[in-house]
Amino acid sequence: MNNFVYFNPVKVVFGKGSIASLSDLIPKGQKIMLAYGGGSIKQNGVYDQVVKALKGYDVVEFSGIEPNPGYETCMQAVEIVKKEKVEFILAVGGGSVLDGVKFIAAASKFEGGDPWKILSDKAEVKSAMPLGSVITLPATGSEMNAYSVVSKKSTNEKFAFYSPEVFPKFSIIDPEVTFSLPKRQVINGLVDTFVHVVEQYATFNVNSPLQDRQAEAILNTLVEISKDVLNKENDYESRANFFWCATSALNGVISCGVPQDWATHMIGHELTALYGIDHAQSLAIVLPRVWKYNLELKQQKLLQYGRRVFEIDGKDNKKTALKVIKRTEKFFQKLGIKTKLSDYKIDAKDAAEKISERFKTREAKLGEKEQLTYKDIKKILKKC
Amino acid sequence: MNNFVYFNPVKVVFGKGSIASLSDLIPKGQKIMLAYGGGSIKQNGVYDQVVKALKGYDVVEFSGIEPNPGYETCMQAVEIVKKEKVEFILAVGGGSVLDGVKFIAAASKFEGGDPWKILSDKAEVKSAMPLGSVITLPATGSEMNAYSVVSKKSTNEKFAFYSPEVFPKFSIIDPEVTFSLPKRQVINGLVDTFVHVVEQYATFNVNSPLQDRQAEAILNTLVEISKDVLNKENDYESRANFFWCATSALNGVISCGVPQDWATHMIGHELTALYGIDHAQSLAIVLPRVWKYNLELKQQKLLQYGRRVFEIDGKDNKKTALKVIKRTEKFFQKLGIKTKLSDYKIDAKDAAEKISERFKTREAKLGEKEQLTYKDIKKILKKC
Repeated sequence: MNNFVYFNPVKVVFGKGSIASLSDLIPKGQKIMLAYGGGSIKQNGVYDQVVKALKGYDVVEFSGIEPNPGYETCMQAVEIVKKEKVEFILAVGGGSVLDGVKFIAAASKFEGGDPWKILSDKAEVKSAMPLGSVITLPATGSEMNAYSVVSKKSTNEKFAFYSPEVFPKFSIIDPEVTFSLPKRQVINGLVDTFVHVVEQYATFNVNSPLQDRQAEAILNTLVEISKDVLNKENDYESRANFFWCATSALNGVISCGVPQDWATHMIGHELTALYGIDHAQSLAIVLPRVWKYNLELKQQKLLQYGRRVFEIDGKDNKKTALKVIKRTEKFFQKLGIKTKLSDYKIDAKDAAEKISERFKTREAKLGEKEQLTYKDIKKILKKC
Repeated sequence: MNNFVYFNPVKVVFGKGSIASLSDLIPKGQKIMLAYGGGSIKQNGVYDQVVKALKGYDVVEFSGIEPNPGYETCMQAVEIVKKEKVEFILAVGGGSVLDGVKFIAAASKFEGGDPWKILSDKAEVKSAMPLGSVITLPATGSEMNAYSVVSKKSTNEKFAFYSPEVFPKFSIIDPEVTFSLPKRQVINGLVDTFVHVVEQYATFNVNSPLQDRQAEAILNTLVEISKDVLNKENDYESRANFFWCATSALNGVISCGVPQDWATHMIGHELTALYGIDHAQSLAIVLPRVWKYNLELKQQKLLQYGRRVFEIDGKDNKKTALKVIKRTEKFFQKLGIKTKLSDYKIDAKDAAEKISERFKTREAKLGEKEQLTYKDIKKILKKC
């Protein structure tokens, strides 16, 4: 196992009725920015629960944080934070709202010029506004980490940043709030969670049996519960288990001391930025091709994963590993997500050209051994 | 799954050479109490590494914190903390040293009279000195939680307390420091870790598939690595995996949203306090009998555990569950620990009388459903 540092100070308040605990979590008397998205929280009752719990606080609202939160939108919020002397930002919504709020929190205190540098140049975040979340979508895991992904609409760019300063002070997870989610978002969340796990797992072996099994614990649970999650209406148990899988997938536990491969996410981000497909759709397309392209490097883990999650075994290692990749793609398809660029009317050649060019400019190297240059990315995308 | 709150702000610094990072973890200029046990850290080089890393700090030493740390010893340290105006306490040693330091940290700031009340009356800990650890023994998990167990030698009492105020700010885990451990302590650590996991797992079912598998991940890993841990000399990999199992067993992750049964620990503490047997020995004796006594309540989980950890299956549920319990006891024995009171020359009847009397006085109810009164405890101990 590799050396590692693990630190995650987020307080998770999980379960039915947990939104009511907001007033125990935010210091009394603070001026709060209540940040949310397109207003779905007004239809599903979450907004009302939050407003009720925040009675007595001085609250300024900021709505309109969009999916793949926009730098431009976030900067409007930063202005309000400064003008209104906001002391605490509460994100209410999915991962996009929370990612936006993390950036708003960092940008509000950034003193190094244009806060876009936090994303484009990985400029250091020395401090940030305190923030918390009521998370409504099991998917990104943003509720229990210090990552954020923000897009610049004007240039079709999408970047991630990390800073311990933007750990939420708390995240409230009430699985009941997912009952009103459109099916597409539930499917996306399942795929996103699954891919988060395998990107920290399907790499090369470093003798980490516990972390392997912790990752497989999430994968097996997702496979086991996905039918109920998708088909049983208002089923608290499957939604609770799903949400805890999503949070656990990206809270740092399974990545302790192991190599990570975020190539699928990195390439996927570009597909989303350029063609507007959903984040999870981009992952379902790219992952099988990244795996196939790095078959030798990942073979041992793919075989273990195949055995322990899908009960696939075989004598020929290469053939078996390919079977495991196919089985994974089929799992995504069975959930109801399409796994080819052509399914979304995107020309693979066009995507390969445009996206590899971007990675060339950035001199980026992707993969668990930084083994993928823009040339490899081009080949991978052509197979998508 | 049940509602839950999860919070664990401990920074874990894990791996070879990590003791050198001490000076990045303790604020410069602080007056430090360096607390340790019987001096084994002076033989195995840990003391030297720590002293080197603390160069430039003003350090006062406190040694002699014993196994099953004594209230009386800790109170001597409290006096020194106050007199010397210590600002940070660093525990260097095993779980006993760290548990002692947690109590010292809480007692140093306690304003409610005799700090023994923190243990005996569960008096609230409103604040505590900041503390950190260099943990040298994979066993108690104390390095990543806010629990502490302290004994009063004069009355043969042993109590636990919990307070978020005593979370270590950091814990440094260098698996190499375990190379010099006596075999008995390694065996004890394996058993202690195993029992920590099953006490949060082998209860009744609340539909928590992820937490179940996270627990099984630790159990399976312990079973897999235990031979190497015990027999391979200076084997970094198996010791690293073992240590991370021990830490992960009691950092709160696997207990999220599930019932817990600490009856084995509670009864075991009394055996240790009265007869001086090792903590892990007491657990290996009591656990199989607690399980047998609560067979019906635990049956479903025992069957799942048997299938997934020991590949035991069978048609007759009761018989299979009993087989699983026997297999667990055999696992302990194979590690090299004895599992009956008579093996330690303790009279079961005597233990049953004395210990059940203690629980009677305290009006204690043990078990995941508080189903065990002093009468049940008497019956369980007679079977030990």
